[in-house]
Amino acid sequence: MKAFMDKDFLLSTETAKKLYHEYAEKMPILDYHCHIDPREIYEDRRFGNITQVWLGADHYKWRQMRSNGVEERFITGDAPDREKFQKWAETLEMAIGNPLYHWSHLELKKYFGYEGCLNSRTAEEVWNLCNEQLARPDHSARSLIRMSNVTLVCTTDDPADSLEWHKKIAEDDTFDVQVLPAWRPDRAMNLEKPDYPDYLERLSEASGVRVNSFASLLEALDRRMDHFAANGCRVSDHGLEYVMYDPAPEKAVEAVFAKRLAGETVTKHEEHIFKTAFMVAMGRAYHRRGWVMQLHYGVKRDNNESIFRRLGPDAGIDSIASMAPASETADYLNALAGTDELPRTILYSLNPIDNAAIGTIIGCFQDSSCVGKVQQGSAWWFNDNKTGMLDQMTSLANLGLLGNFIGMLTDSRSFLSYTRHEYFRRILCELIGGWVENGEYPADYEVLEKIVKGISYNNAVRYFGFDLQKR
Amino acid sequence: MKAFMDKDFLLSTETAKKLYHEYAEKMPILDYHCHIDPREIYEDRRFGNITQVWLGADHYKWRQMRSNGVEERFITGDAPDREKFQKWAETLEMAIGNPLYHWSHLELKKYFGYEGCLNSRTAEEVWNLCNEQLARPDHSARSLIRMSNVTLVCTTDDPADSLEWHKKIAEDDTFDVQVLPAWRPDRAMNLEKPDYPDYLERLSEASGVRVNSFASLLEALDRRMDHFAANGCRVSDHGLEYVMYDPAPEKAVEAVFAKRLAGETVTKHEEHIFKTAFMVAMGRAYHRRGWVMQLHYGVKRDNNESIFRRLGPDAGIDSIASMAPASETADYLNALAGTDELPRTILYSLNPIDNAAIGTIIGCFQDSSCVGKVQQGSAWWFNDNKTGMLDQMTSLANLGLLGNFIGMLTDSRSFLSYTRHEYFRRILCELIGGWVENGEYPADYEVLEKIVKGISYNNAVRYFGFDLQKR
Amino acid sequence: MKAFMDKDFLLSTETAKKLYHEYAEKMPILDYHCHIDPREIYEDRRFGNITQVWLGADHYKWRQMRSNGVEERFITGDAPDREKFQKWAETLEMAIGNPLYHWSHLELKKYFGYEGCLNSRTAEEVWNLCNEQLARPDHSARSLIRMSNVTLVCTTDDPADSLEWHKKIAEDDTFDVQVLPAWRPDRAMNLEKPDYPDYLERLSEASGVRVNSFASLLEALDRRMDHFAANGCRVSDHGLEYVMYDPAPEKAVEAVFAKRLAGETVTKHEEHIFKTAFMVAMGRAYHRRGWVMQLHYGVKRDNNESIFRRLGPDAGIDSIASMAPASETADYLNALAGTDELPRTILYSLNPIDNAAIGTIIGCFQDSSCVGKVQQGSAWWFNDNKTGMLDQMTSLANLGLLGNFIGMLTDSRSFLSYTRHEYFRRILCELIGGWVENGEYPADYEVLEKIVKGISYNNAVRYFGFDLQKR
Repeated sequence: MKAFMDKDFLLSTETAKKLYHEYAEKMPILDYHCHIDPREIYEDRRFGNITQVWLGADHYKWRQMRSNGVEERFITGDAPDREKFQKWAETLEMAIGNPLYHWSHLELKKYFGYEGCLNSRTAEEVWNLCNEQLARPDHSARSLIRMSNVTLVCTTDDPADSLEWHKKIAEDDTFDVQVLPAWRPDRAMNLEKPDYPDYLERLSEASGVRVNSFASLLEALDRRMDHFAANGCRVSDHGLEYVMYDPAPEKAVEAVFAKRLAGETVTKHEEHIFKTAFMVAMGRAYHRRGWVMQLHYGVKRDNNESIFRRLGPDAGIDSIASMAPASETADYLNALAGTDELPRTILYSLNPIDNAAIGTIIGCFQDSSCVGKVQQGSAWWFNDNKTGMLDQMTSLANLGLLGNFIGMLTDSRSFLSYTRHEYFRRILCELIGGWVENGEYPADYEVLEKIVKGISYNNAVRYFGFDLQKR
Repeated sequence: MKAFMDKDFLLSTETAKKLYHEYAEKMPILDYHCHIDPREIYEDRRFGNITQVWLGADHYKWRQMRSNGVEERFITGDAPDREKFQKWAETLEMAIGNPLYHWSHLELKKYFGYEGCLNSRTAEEVWNLCNEQLARPDHSARSLIRMSNVTLVCTTDDPADSLEWHKKIAEDDTFDVQVLPAWRPDRAMNLEKPDYPDYLERLSEASGVRVNSFASLLEALDRRMDHFAANGCRVSDHGLEYVMYDPAPEKAVEAVFAKRLAGETVTKHEEHIFKTAFMVAMGRAYHRRGWVMQLHYGVKRDNNESIFRRLGPDAGIDSIASMAPASETADYLNALAGTDELPRTILYSLNPIDNAAIGTIIGCFQDSSCVGKVQQGSAWWFNDNKTGMLDQMTSLANLGLLGNFIGMLTDSRSFLSYTRHEYFRRILCELIGGWVENGEYPADYEVLEKIVKGISYNNAVRYFGFDLQKR
Repeated sequence: MKAFMDKDFLLSTETAKKLYHEYAEKMPILDYHCHIDPREIYEDRRFGNITQVWLGADHYKWRQMRSNGVEERFITGDAPDREKFQKWAETLEMAIGNPLYHWSHLELKKYFGYEGCLNSRTAEEVWNLCNEQLARPDHSARSLIRMSNVTLVCTTDDPADSLEWHKKIAEDDTFDVQVLPAWRPDRAMNLEKPDYPDYLERLSEASGVRVNSFASLLEALDRRMDHFAANGCRVSDHGLEYVMYDPAPEKAVEAVFAKRLAGETVTKHEEHIFKTAFMVAMGRAYHRRGWVMQLHYGVKRDNNESIFRRLGPDAGIDSIASMAPASETADYLNALAGTDELPRTILYSLNPIDNAAIGTIIGCFQDSSCVGKVQQGSAWWFNDNKTGMLDQMTSLANLGLLGNFIGMLTDSRSFLSYTRHEYFRRILCELIGGWVENGEYPADYEVLEKIVKGISYNNAVRYFGFDLQKR
């Protein structure tokens, strides 16, 4: 029996161990997609206790606590932090096979040096250990990032955002990790939302362009893209119901926009033609600027209205949507490729059953402008676990060139989540090591090193084209 | 090489063996969902021969015999039982990798002490061995249930059913296993069926409520729920095309019902709004009574009309349906949760590609009224095999708390099917044992015992809230 | 560590090795579905170099080269063959885990005796070795087929095809492998295509029946089926968006056809009712003739218009379609079974998520006219890799009788692709061998031999009913 989560955690063969310890483990982290608040980095936030770090905003954990029958006051309510932590420890025991079990222990080991198991009986010990360390400056937000060997972080930002915190970080010589904005214009696209007109006000103000038509919306966004680019942005990101393609003449799109501005409700079809036009325009803009386009889809959000009313979005009440017509995804990419305006693109579906379709779609749009121009993103959110990652990488290997995969990101709100890269790299090395041990790929360490270091870090550096020397 | 189906069948690690033999194997069985005829229990049915037990009503086996080119007279026709058995034995040889291969041999071993392999060459020997034992009173229906260490059985019953056999069993002191009805009101919901008006007649009679409106339908069902509750019912069950949600005002629902009663055909949309209203009303009624709601969906039934005309339903001509919009499932649960009327609920889709979506949906509706309030049911029907169970449990572990899973049921018409619990528990212990051996969960036997015994039996006892002391 | 692709490649247990080397390896190949050009067989084509063999028409490889950022001139353009080969070798290095990695090396070993690894450093050596051998008569098209122990090949042919090359091969006593046509009437069905009227002209001419109605279309096809049958055809094949069923009266179908002939555009619904009628008529015709019906679906073709304009179809720009309603598939088979006119049928979906639905549908339509009458085809195209084959066979085993599976086909345009049968058989033996080693099936070598030889070759011989003595 292997010891619990020892140094060879998830590595069952000699080749896997070699690949991990000699190549993957030492590579830095390029975290090209996360939800960290840049202000917390600038202000070098300190944490009062482990409950604040772990349960303050982590809806992954909230879900599991609810599944364990824990009362809401111990989850998002006003119960004392120590009691919340106890409830979490009790919940974790039942989370056998869940990635939270592994993530939590990887975090305890890496950031707090704890080698034991967190459970209801050890919660007191862990609480004391963590809090003592969190009180020290070497566990501030910046310290945690430095400890994690991160070279660059992309946050997720609205077009109307001033990016003031990014600027301040850039001007601060005492911190050598780049923190760049990523462009996420969901609110500018979701015209069906009640607060859409309010949002357009904000955007008009931020951009200096009065948004009163689809054309002026694009103009306003273009100005904001300039602003983002000036602050180092090279990546965009979209949260979509699915990657749709329902094209219509510009006049029809303007009519939908005008209808919405007039306060009327748009139909589902109108929504789709508007969003199609919006996404085609965005794709072209990204191509023009050399930005990468990330498309996240397959989510149904905020399902439980009674929780949503109390807690708002990101409350652990989202689920996988089952409707994602692959044909429209292909048609959307084709619409951009047809005029040679397809930017580098990363597709992420929350539904793992889309893996094979995505793997075949990306293969249709590759070209020589870039190695691995269209990518399937790493196993995302609910799939960010051992089987999910194995499935995504196996599918990618079956259908394309795994060697060119740009690999992992944290997608997290927490400064402790960089261990997800370790988790991913262990699984990657186990997969590849298994193939080598099984005679399915030669033990050619020159190439294997290139592949493992590439997927761990180098491919992403090449793909996004960040200037890491700035650092 | 491991011996064929020895005592460590499916258990490849020492931890798996320990978990199974020390914890899982000894737990009783709570069979909360099956299709056994309570009359056969009351009358303590005896079986003439193994063909009657195995091929009398088992459409799983019928399908495989047809796949082997066997003539229908040897399957459901008038061929002699011995010849039918021979055809089954020949078919079984080709069923390599099929759960029927394992179930059949587990049954031969447990109930008849046969340690060999059934095939065309051994069929005579097996025929004689089984029939000799079936002739003895220790192989009657009740004896088989007792041999299986069953504490409680839930059958599947129509609202119009008198439950006379359940009453008689309850009054019979010589049998100490509880046999309780489960409420299955499919016929009251399926207004598109030709015999719907006839059914409403039956229901009116059984309930004493003249059903001439949707409101009176609910009233009649409410009376029958009282009757079921008085007979120990705590579980409902529905067979749905999919879990739909297409809400409409009460008036519109009444109009659909009136249209149907007038002999007109309802449209698909009308059917959906009626069924939505029906299911919302049922969910509320279950919540009020503290009943569990089981939702089985993703089936397309009776596909081969030429067989259906001869044999009727449950003839081995059902298939997996591919249309199950996860968004409507979430919306339905939300409709109940929004007014705090969501009962404990178990979702079962016949399509294994729904696993991930279900795993994320249930996580949105958990609350502190119960541990693991919304459950994904165990791998059902066509998925009730080694990979199907591993996939369902791995998905559940990835997305929720496997430790709170309520585990297995037989879903069977046969008194020999309790070995499916053994099959399930072996697979469960192999999965968990593998994680422990691989360092993915600590070898903490205090918790592991709780988890394994919980999933085998204790979680279901806690979840359904049956009074097992009655026994 | 196992050596790279040695004689026990993919065989990890003793039983797997025994099953492969004693049973599977020696069986001939019946390649009942491929895209080889019969003319090349008749003319016994010789190849100038390995680039012509490998990159001339292999869109699987083209996709991967594009994914590696290779310029189109090195893929389908006018770059020198040696340079194209270098680019392919560089690409292959990154294709870790991809079936092309294995196929390429199996081909190098079997046909050229190369035991090393092709990569950027060995490309020169491999180039020279292969080309030297390709220059010899023992590497002509016919020689390659003979070396592969093939007994029969079915090509893929349009109804209007004269079959002249098939006739010539049949008359040529110097070649003892049967090369038979397979009937693929896609162009006669796809009335939405711009060149449909032109095609009908061709068909009218070939058949001697003036096609001016749906009835006369069927009459023309019937004549051509006679012609195909006279040339040994026993298999049909269809490429479908999905297996649809949307029945309409004959008059309505004739009206759609007339509308199309009048030059008007048909609606999606009209297209569906036409295609449904077409497919029902074809199914009946196949049943009458004792032909097998192959249904390939779940593809979205020619996604990248900019490549399509330059290269036409089969250019590596196809993807998996996600829309395949299983209910219509079942209804279509039922429409034929209802009048006892369902031919032997093989279903292939390109989307692996359809596996379970297909496995359950085929079980509904089996009958005693044939062993394993309705089959799920082997893992197709994008699924033709280790995990894809394991998934397809495991699904088949879970849901039906794996022992009756008719096994592998090449589906290839290349004379080197027969090694895909070796790949398949190794994976088959690994799967079955694993079950035996694990105690899940007895080590009964009498039955195992029957099963392994059956799936490798004998089942297909029995299923298709070819007269192999002709050979």
